[in-house]
Amino acid sequence: MAESIDVRSRSAGDMREACGVFGCVSSGQSPGDLDVAHVITLGLTALQHRGQESVGMVTSNGKSPSQFFVHKAMGLVSHVVHEEHLAALRKGNLGIGHTRYATSGHSDLLNCQPFVVETIVGCIAVAHNGELVNAAKLRQKVLRHGVGLSTSSDSELITQLLALTPPEEEADGPNWVARIRNLMVKSLAAYSLLILHQDTIYAVRDPFGNRPLCIGKLHATASLHGQGVVDVKTEGWVVSSESCSFQSIGARFERELFPGEIVQITSTGYISLDVVPRPNDAPPAFCIFEYVYFARPDTIFEGQMVYTVRKRCGRQLALEWPVEADVVSTVPESATPAALGYAHQAGLPYVEVLCKNRYVGRTFIQPDKRHRQLSVAKKFGVLRDNFAGKRIVLVDDSIVRGTTISPIIRLLREAGAQEVHIRVASPPSPFPLLHGH
Amino acid sequence: MAESIDVRSRSAGDMREACGVFGCVSSGQSPGDLDVAHVITLGLTALQHRGQESVGMVTSNGKSPSQFFVHKAMGLVSHVVHEEHLAALRKGNLGIGHTRYATSGHSDLLNCQPFVVETIVGCIAVAHNGELVNAAKLRQKVLRHGVGLSTSSDSELITQLLALTPPEEEADGPNWVARIRNLMVKSLAAYSLLILHQDTIYAVRDPFGNRPLCIGKLHATASLHGQGVVDVKTEGWVVSSESCSFQSIGARFERELFPGEIVQITSTGYISLDVVPRPNDAPPAFCIFEYVYFARPDTIFEGQMVYTVRKRCGRQLALEWPVEADVVSTVPESATPAALGYAHQAGLPYVEVLCKNRYVGRTFIQPDKRHRQLSVAKKFGVLRDNFAGKRIVLVDDSIVRGTTISPIIRLLREAGAQEVHIRVASPPSPFPLLHGH
Amino acid sequence: MAESIDVRSRSAGDMREACGVFGCVSSGQSPGDLDVAHVITLGLTALQHRGQESVGMVTSNGKSPSQFFVHKAMGLVSHVVHEEHLAALRKGNLGIGHTRYATSGHSDLLNCQPFVVETIVGCIAVAHNGELVNAAKLRQKVLRHGVGLSTSSDSELITQLLALTPPEEEADGPNWVARIRNLMVKSLAAYSLLILHQDTIYAVRDPFGNRPLCIGKLHATASLHGQGVVDVKTEGWVVSSESCSFQSIGARFERELFPGEIVQITSTGYISLDVVPRPNDAPPAFCIFEYVYFARPDTIFEGQMVYTVRKRCGRQLALEWPVEADVVSTVPESATPAALGYAHQAGLPYVEVLCKNRYVGRTFIQPDKRHRQLSVAKKFGVLRDNFAGKRIVLVDDSIVRGTTISPIIRLLREAGAQEVHIRVASPPSPFPLLHGH
Amino acid sequence: MAESIDVRSRSAGDMREACGVFGCVSSGQSPGDLDVAHVITLGLTALQHRGQESVGMVTSNGKSPSQFFVHKAMGLVSHVVHEEHLAALRKGNLGIGHTRYATSGHSDLLNCQPFVVETIVGCIAVAHNGELVNAAKLRQKVLRHGVGLSTSSDSELITQLLALTPPEEEADGPNWVARIRNLMVKSLAAYSLLILHQDTIYAVRDPFGNRPLCIGKLHATASLHGQGVVDVKTEGWVVSSESCSFQSIGARFERELFPGEIVQITSTGYISLDVVPRPNDAPPAFCIFEYVYFARPDTIFEGQMVYTVRKRCGRQLALEWPVEADVVSTVPESATPAALGYAHQAGLPYVEVLCKNRYVGRTFIQPDKRHRQLSVAKKFGVLRDNFAGKRIVLVDDSIVRGTTISPIIRLLREAGAQEVHIRVASPPSPFPLLHGH
Repeated sequence: MAESIDVRSRSAGDMREACGVFGCVSSGQSPGDLDVAHVITLGLTALQHRGQESVGMVTSNGKSPSQFFVHKAMGLVSHVVHEEHLAALRKGNLGIGHTRYATSGHSDLLNCQPFVVETIVGCIAVAHNGELVNAAKLRQKVLRHGVGLSTSSDSELITQLLALTPPEEEADGPNWVARIRNLMVKSLAAYSLLILHQDTIYAVRDPFGNRPLCIGKLHATASLHGQGVVDVKTEGWVVSSESCSFQSIGARFERELFPGEIVQITSTGYISLDVVPRPNDAPPAFCIFEYVYFARPDTIFEGQMVYTVRKRCGRQLALEWPVEADVVSTVPESATPAALGYAHQAGLPYVEVLCKNRYVGRTFIQPDKRHRQLSVAKKFGVLRDNFAGKRIVLVDDSIVRGTTISPIIRLLREAGAQEVHIRVASPPSPFPLLHGH
Repeated sequence: MAESIDVRSRSAGDMREACGVFGCVSSGQSPGDLDVAHVITLGLTALQHRGQESVGMVTSNGKSPSQFFVHKAMGLVSHVVHEEHLAALRKGNLGIGHTRYATSGHSDLLNCQPFVVETIVGCIAVAHNGELVNAAKLRQKVLRHGVGLSTSSDSELITQLLALTPPEEEADGPNWVARIRNLMVKSLAAYSLLILHQDTIYAVRDPFGNRPLCIGKLHATASLHGQGVVDVKTEGWVVSSESCSFQSIGARFERELFPGEIVQITSTGYISLDVVPRPNDAPPAFCIFEYVYFARPDTIFEGQMVYTVRKRCGRQLALEWPVEADVVSTVPESATPAALGYAHQAGLPYVEVLCKNRYVGRTFIQPDKRHRQLSVAKKFGVLRDNFAGKRIVLVDDSIVRGTTISPIIRLLREAGAQEVHIRVASPPSPFPLLHGH
Repeated sequence: MAESIDVRSRSAGDMREACGVFGCVSSGQSPGDLDVAHVITLGLTALQHRGQESVGMVTSNGKSPSQFFVHKAMGLVSHVVHEEHLAALRKGNLGIGHTRYATSGHSDLLNCQPFVVETIVGCIAVAHNGELVNAAKLRQKVLRHGVGLSTSSDSELITQLLALTPPEEEADGPNWVARIRNLMVKSLAAYSLLILHQDTIYAVRDPFGNRPLCIGKLHATASLHGQGVVDVKTEGWVVSSESCSFQSIGARFERELFPGEIVQITSTGYISLDVVPRPNDAPPAFCIFEYVYFARPDTIFEGQMVYTVRKRCGRQLALEWPVEADVVSTVPESATPAALGYAHQAGLPYVEVLCKNRYVGRTFIQPDKRHRQLSVAKKFGVLRDNFAGKRIVLVDDSIVRGTTISPIIRLLREAGAQEVHIRVASPPSPFPLLHGH
Repeated sequence: MAESIDVRSRSAGDMREACGVFGCVSSGQSPGDLDVAHVITLGLTALQHRGQESVGMVTSNGKSPSQFFVHKAMGLVSHVVHEEHLAALRKGNLGIGHTRYATSGHSDLLNCQPFVVETIVGCIAVAHNGELVNAAKLRQKVLRHGVGLSTSSDSELITQLLALTPPEEEADGPNWVARIRNLMVKSLAAYSLLILHQDTIYAVRDPFGNRPLCIGKLHATASLHGQGVVDVKTEGWVVSSESCSFQSIGARFERELFPGEIVQITSTGYISLDVVPRPNDAPPAFCIFEYVYFARPDTIFEGQMVYTVRKRCGRQLALEWPVEADVVSTVPESATPAALGYAHQAGLPYVEVLCKNRYVGRTFIQPDKRHRQLSVAKKFGVLRDNFAGKRIVLVDDSIVRGTTISPIIRLLREAGAQEVHIRVASPPSPFPLLHGH
C-alpha cells in the first residue's frame, strides 16, 4: 500500500532506518484543552519523509496508573489514520507517535512502534529513531536474564532494557531517570528516544548526539488592535525528530536537545534532568546523512537550515571540483539545493534536465526483453531542449546510488548531451561511521 | 470477516476461551516426506469449532539452531490460509498451530498464537488452550523480575515463564523439561500446551487434566491382494485438542495425555517424560463444558464419544424430569443428541420445531422500532406443522443462554404450541468451577 | 470471504442460480415511518441460503423523477452491509434487494443485482431469480436493435428488454405494465422479478410459475387489556422469494403470486394488474428443486411447508423402497426431514451417523499424497457409537451429489457399519427440466 | 488507497477529467513476440499523472470473434497491477489501457475504463480522455432509441453510440469507420478515443483536436561494431495521450494525430482512414490546460516540449509584468519552468522558497481550533534563509488555485519576506472554453 518512494529514500534504504518520532503534551488537564491526537497526526505527517512503512500513536490519560490508547497501522498517515482512530486517542492529553522506515523483511504490525509494555513500575510506551550499536551484546544480556524476546528489533530490546530494574536507585519508588541513564550507559549510540509514562514524556538523545531531537511550544495567538499577532497562552509542548514539523502545527521552535540529554516534558513545561557524558571527551557525532538525505530541507539542525547546508556543499563542490561546462543540473530532487549552489558559485546557468515520475513504485516486473535502460527511463523523463548539444554538470547528493547514475548518464548522452560531468555533494564523512547508521 | 457463529458458540462466549491446538511431526528427515503444513491446516480446520477468530501456524526445520516459519491471520482457516502461506511453512518438517476463540476486546494479530520467542536456550513457539488460574500473581512475579509484558494474555505470560531460567537444572545445557515442570508447579491449572523447540514438540496437560489433549499416528496405507488396507509405514505423529481432527487427516488415535503429563514428540515417536502430580491427591477436574459445548460430537474424551455422553444426559434427564407431552425437540443444534436421548427414554416422538439461519452474524443493527422478538426470529425459523396444537419438551444444552430461551418459548407458543417444557441437559457440575474456564 | 456452504448449496451448484429477491414498501410517505433499509436487510438475511456470493440493495425516495440509493457488495449480508450503508439507503421509503448465488466465472460486482438503468421513461432497478430460457435469441434481438451489452448476464438482458419501447401502448405516457407484459411474452420462463420504479414495485412471476414469489404485510401491533396482541396499523408491504423471511421482520404472509401474475405494490397496498397466460393451456411448472434443495424448510409453497413436503417424501420412500435395517439416518442436513419421515414410516429408530464441519470451505489444497477419502472426512465426522455393527438406511436428498455419496458409504463401512443402504428423497421430476434451472 | 496527490492535480480537480489512454499492437502474430501487457503497464505508469483513481487494461487475442482479457482496479498502476494480472492479459497480442482521474462521486469500478461491450458487429473495448460537449442531448437520443443506461458517464454513452447501427453503410458487413465517423459528426468535441476490436485499434482525435493523441513505434535495437545502436526490427506500435510514455518503453515518437483523424493500427502498421472536418473552417482548439497543468513537462505537443512552452510563458511574463525584486521563485512544482524562465528574462536569481510535503493527502480532519494557516503549512515548508528580508516574485501556474495563494503569501511574509509579488504563468485562453474541460 505504501507510496511510490522517491530515489532519495530508496538510496537511503542501503543504510539503516531513518524513522521519525513526535510527542505532544497538553498544558491543560482536561482532554478538550488541546487536541493532542490531532497535533501528533499533523506532526507525523510532517515527518513522513523519514518513514512510510507504518505509523503508530499512543496517548495517555496521564493518571496513575494511566490508561493508554493505541493506534498502529501499515501505511502512510494520510491513508491509515482516520477520524475514528483519533476519537479514541483523544481520551489522552499527552502522547507519542512514530513513523517507520521500510526495511526489508520485518514489514509487519508486530514491529510497528511505539512499543507498549507493562513493567513492575508501570506502563510505558517507547518510540525510537536509530539503533543500538551494541545491540547483539545487549540482546544476550537480556536473554541471560531470562527474558524472552519476540522480535529482532531494537525497539523491543530497548523496552526490555528499561524494564530491568536498576539495582539500587529504586528503593524510594520508580526512578525512570535512573533506568534511562542505565540504558544510555549500556549503549552510547545511536538513537533518539521518546518514553511515555503516565503524565510525562521523557525525551532522550544519545551521548554522541547521532540522531536529532528538538522541542517546540504550542501557543494560542490573538490579534491585538491591528498590532499583529501576539502570544496569549501556552497550549502545550511538542518534541520532534525535525523542526519542520513545528510549522504545520503552529508551534514555535524552542531548542534542540544536547547530546546525551534527558528532558522531562509535562503539562507544566520541560526541564533538563541530566546529560550523560561521552567517554574520554570524545567529540559528538551527528549523522551526516541527516543533512544529505534524511531531513526535510526546511528543518534546522545545529542552528542551520538543512537546505542552506546542502547549498553550501554545492558551492564548495564548485570550488574544489570545477569543470568547463554550459549548464548545471540536478538529479531530482534532494540534490537540487546543491546544484543551485554549484551553479551560483560556478557562474553557470541552472537548468532542469530530468523530470521525475512519482508513480513508479516498485519495479515488480523485471525488464527481461527490453534493454535495462528502461528502468531508469521509467523513473525519469528527459527534458531534451534544456541540454541538447551542451556540456552538463550533473549534481547528485551521494554515491550511494551508484547503480543508478550510469544509466542516467547514458540517457542524457543519447538525448544529445555533449558531455555529462557528475559531481557528488555529500562531504567526506568527518568521523568514521562507527555508529552503524 | 468472522463467520456467523451458532448459538452454542455465542453462549460459550459467556465463559472464557476454548481454542484449539494441533501439532505434527514428520517421521522423515526431509521436508518432502510429509506435508506437515498441510496436515496442520487440516487439523486446525477440524478444530475450527473451538475458535474462529484467528489462526496461527509455526513450523520448524528441526535444526539447531532452528529456523521457524510463521503464518498468523485473523479469520477462518479456509479463508486466511492459502497455498502461498503453505509454500513457506513447508520448509519445516514439524510444527504447531492454534485456532483462537473470539473474546471481546483484544481481537488482533498481537494476541494470535502460537507465540514465538527467543530465549537464552533457543527459540520456542507456544500454543495453549485454557488459562492460568493464578495469572495475576504470576504476572507480578514476572514483572518483578524486570520483564516487560506487552499484552494482557496468558500466552505471553507462559512464554516468559518458560524463558525465566530455572536456578540449577541447566548447568549441563538447556533443560526444557525442567522449565516446563517449573511452569506447571507454578500454575496447576487449567491448560493444555504445545511447545515447539528445534526438532521437538512438548505436549503438556495441566495436573488437573482440565483441558483435553491427545496423540495420534499418521501411517501410509496400502491395499494388499484384496485383503484390505494395511499399515506400511509410520509417516508421522500428531497431537490435538480433540480426536475428531484425526479422521480428516487419516491419523489413528493413540491415546489421551494423562493429567499432568509431559510428552515429548520427535520424528522417532513420542515418549512420556514426566507426570506432575496434583497436591494432596486432589481428584482430576476435566472441564464439563468440553462435553456440553466445546467439543465436536465425534470426539472421544476419557474413552467415550462426546455425542454418546450428551445422549446419555438426555436419557437421564427424561428419568429425573419426566413430563406429560406429545413431542420432544431440540434447540439446534448442540442439544440434538440430548433431545434424541430424552425422546428415546421417554418413548415420545422426536421432531424438529426450529430451523436455524446460519447466516445471521452479529446483530449490528438494534431492532429499535420492531419488537424484540425479532432478533430470535432472525436466528430461528418455526416449523409449525411439526408441533401446532402439541405439548413440546424442548431440550437445551445449558442455562447459560437464559436470555435466549424465553423468546424462543414465546415464538413457539405464538406459532401454536400448546405447552413448551424446557429441559436443560448439562449435568450439575461435579466440581466447583475453581479453574475459571 | 463467503462462508463454508453446506452440502445442499454446493450440490445445487451443479445446477444454475438460485438467488433471492426481496422488496419492501412503506405505507407512510416520510422516510422515518418505516426503516425500509433495515427491513430489506433482515429479509435478505433470511434469504441468504439462496445465495451467498453478493448482496445488493436499492431504495427509492418515491418522487418523480425519483432518486435511487444503492449499495452492492461481495459477501454475506452480515459481513458487508453496515450501519453506514443503511444510513444512505434510509433516504428511500421503498426498495428492493437481492442475494446472489456463487456461480463460476463472473464473480464480481459488475454482475451484482439489482441492476439500475435509466430509460427514456425513467430509472428502474431490477432484481431477478432464475433465467430466461431463450436468452440467446433475445440477446441477438437486443444487439440487432443497436444496443451494446456489457455482461453475459440475464439481468442486463432483462433491463435492456424493459428499456426497449413497446410500439403503441405508450402514446399516453410510460406504461410499465405493457413493457413487462412485452418481456413476459418474449420469454415465458423461468424467473421471478422485482422492478422498482419511482414509488412502485412491480412483482412478476413467469407464466409457468417456475420460481417462487410471495407477498406479506408489515403491521404494528399493540397489546389490549391483556387480551393479546392486535393489529393497529399497516406499516408496509413486503415481497419475497420465500415466506420464511416474513417471520424475522414480523410480517404476515398474505399470498403467493399466481404464475404469470404482475402485481403492483405501492404505499397504499398491492393490486394484481394482469396474469399472462401459458400457451395452449400448458400446466404450470414449479421448480422441483425449490422443494428439494433451495428453499428453507419453514417456507410455505403452494400452501405446504417445505419441511412437511420433504418429510412426506421420506415416508413415501419408505413405502416404495423398504429395506431390512436397524437404523435410519441422514446426510446432514437438508435430508433430515426425509430421514425422519422414512424412520417414522418404517418404524425404525432415527439416529445421527455423521456430524458436519461447517468450516471446511473450498478445498483449495489438493490432497495429493493422502488418500482421497480425506476430503469427505474433512467435511463429516463419524458418530461411530450410533451405528457400529448396525444396518443403516442413509437418506440423501438427491443424486446430484453422486460423487460424494460413495466415499461417505466407505467412511461408514470402515467405521463399523454392517450395511449402508442409500435412499434418495427427491421424487422423479414430474416434468422434464425444460426450464433450465 | 490513492496516493497523496500534488497541488497541481488538486487544482485541476476544479476542472473536469484529464485521464490517460494508451494502446499497443504487436507486429508479431504470437503472444510471445512482444509482451503487450507489460508495455501497456509501463505506458500507463508514464501517464499516471493524468489520473490516479483507477486503472484498466483490456487485451485481445486478435481472432474473429476475438477473446478479450480484462483487468480493472481502483488505485495506482504500481499498486494494483500485479504479475498475476499480467499473466492473464498476456494471452492478447494487442490491447488498450486507461488511467482515470479522481472526480467526486462516481469513484467506483463501474466507471473504470476501458468499457467493454458486445455489439451486433462484435465486441469492442473503448477508452477515452475528455468528454462529449453535447452529452445531455446525445443521452436523450440513446434513451429514446430504447437503450437503458446504467451510469452517467460519457464512456458508456460513447460505447452505446458506437453500438447503434448506422443506417446504410453496413450492408456489406461491419463498418467501424462509418460508426466512428457517425459518432464524431454527432459530437465534435472534446475527446481522444481508443477503440479495440479484434486485431485492430482505432485511434481517434476529435475534430477540434482538443485532447492530445500520438503514435510511436517499438523497435528492437542492436549495437553494430561500436557504431552505436541501430534498428533491427519493428516490434510493434503504440498510441498514447502523451509522448512522455514512449521513453520508458523504448519507443520512438512517430507523430501526433491530426484533429478529426481516425487512425487504424494493426500488426502491420498504422494508416490514416479519414479526417473528419470542423464546421465552417473553425480553427482547432487544443486544450490550453494540457500545456499548463495536465501534461508531463517532457511531453511534446505540436512539435514543442511542454517544459519549453512553460518556460517561454515565464519569459513572456517577465517582459509583460516586470517588477522590482530580489529573487524569483516557484510554487512547486508545476510552475518551476515558468519561474526559471521569468528569472532568466528578468536577470534575477532563481531560488526555492517553499518545499513540499508529498505525503499530505486529503485533509480529512478540519483544523477547527488552530488557525487556518495550518493547512497550507502542512503542505509547504518555508525555506527562510533563501528569502528573509528580500522581495520575492512568486510564479504560479494558474489562478485556479486562488484559494491557496493568499495563505502562501502570508506564510512567506510571516517568515520574513519583504514583498511577495505573484505572477501567473498561464496565458489568456486564446479561445473561449466552449468545450467544457
